[in-house]
Amino acid sequence: MEIKPYKKDFEYSYTLGAFPTFELIDAKPEAVKEVYCSASFTDMEKLEAKCREKNVKLTVNDKVINRLSDKGNVYVVGVFDKYTQKLESKKPHLVLVNPSDMGNLGTIIRTAVGFGIMDLAVIEPAADIFNPKTVRASMGALFRLRQHRFTSFEEYMASDEFGNGSDEKREIFTFMLNGKKQLTVSDCPKPKLYSLVFGNEATGLPDTFLDYGTSIIIPQTPYVDSLNLTIAAGIGMYMFAKG
Amino acid sequence: MEIKPYKKDFEYSYTLGAFPTFELIDAKPEAVKEVYCSASFTDMEKLEAKCREKNVKLTVNDKVINRLSDKGNVYVVGVFDKYTQKLESKKPHLVLVNPSDMGNLGTIIRTAVGFGIMDLAVIEPAADIFNPKTVRASMGALFRLRQHRFTSFEEYMASDEFGNGSDEKREIFTFMLNGKKQLTVSDCPKPKLYSLVFGNEATGLPDTFLDYGTSIIIPQTPYVDSLNLTIAAGIGMYMFAKG
Repeated sequence: MEIKPYKKDFEYSYTLGAFPTFELIDAKPEAVKEVYCSASFTDMEKLEAKCREKNVKLTVNDKVINRLSDKGNVYVVGVFDKYTQKLESKKPHLVLVNPSDMGNLGTIIRTAVGFGIMDLAVIEPAADIFNPKTVRASMGALFRLRQHRFTSFEEYMASDEFGNGSDEKREIFTFMLNGKKQLTVSDCPKPKLYSLVFGNEATGLPDTFLDYGTSIIIPQTPYVDSLNLTIAAGIGMYMFAKG
Repeated sequence: MEIKPYKKDFEYSYTLGAFPTFELIDAKPEAVKEVYCSASFTDMEKLEAKCREKNVKLTVNDKVINRLSDKGNVYVVGVFDKYTQKLESKKPHLVLVNPSDMGNLGTIIRTAVGFGIMDLAVIEPAADIFNPKTVRASMGALFRLRQHRFTSFEEYMASDEFGNGSDEKREIFTFMLNGKKQLTVSDCPKPKLYSLVFGNEATGLPDTFLDYGTSIIIPQTPYVDSLNLTIAAGIGMYMFAKG
């Protein structure tokens, strides 16, 4: 196949680097089209064994590597088909409303997987979840979770994946600078089934989200305007998932 | 004065951008040498009033702004003398051992100030805390806390600032991937006086830190290699400071 620099409307994308490529092959072997590797990659045996085990085609080709690696420190590239998924209606969800930065999106995905939150709803418009930059920032954790993109929060709430009609009611927690409930270690909600909702880096969640469930504020001093989104999401997920 | 691009051995540094410059003038007016501002800055009246209030010299000079602004979106620059400080021995400390990335260092400083941890020990070698990139990533929160650089953790522990000889004993918590105590919401230590210690982005803390106090691990799934340092530090500080 011909290898071109990534564009958002491609039906496939790339993993850049050995770590995310191993994650891809391990977690989503059925999506892999081909793996390319530089002749100077130092861990070739391990990669060959993994590709054999998962029945993935491996080609040594420095031209392809150089074409896709913008910073020159990439030795392995995976080519994979983009895929669509359904969220698990009986598991906790992370909901990101209009995240705009691919690095943040990837970092948050990595943190979610680290805390065992394996279902992600993304409300569009949003940063491209399959862009190689997002994949790389996630360190390949993207391939470990289920993700589904929705055009609005209402569409998400009306979906089967949200869990409408099931016995267990899903509780919504929206993280907002004007949230009503302070989140503290001694007073953290312990819901069985929940969605944690975070807004855009610059604008947060609109005030309409005050009424969707319980609005939460992470208490902070007046000396900073707001926490960084990745840190707020990290704290929120940790508090709910690691109670 | 002559304005040159920043170098680490300068005795002064710069704030790039209106927000960190306002923080500088508010929190450390005695360190400000001069403030420069572009003729096209839209909030000139507020800046003039603040400089008058704090007795700071303000000059409109687009040449200086253009020389220091690498991305062209800076309208205000503050020039300030670097300063040395002592930590408060009766307050909680954040200790960063060999942090290497200026963006991370600034983000962690901003998070610390957000959670009211106002004393920071940095163990060198470390990223330059006064580099304009660190200052900018901190959004000027650097000027709100006390910070002191030490050449070793032993030097920090032997210092008056650590609180040796005082009634209240300081407890040390080291955050390590092989830490002995799992940090959870239902089982978080509640010490009166503490130091939270985090290692380098790539290498973490060396095993010698297992014996300095209580070693802590933030529990996570096996699917990610480790949490991002800024997120781990954010969770650690939040759990101890917002109990």
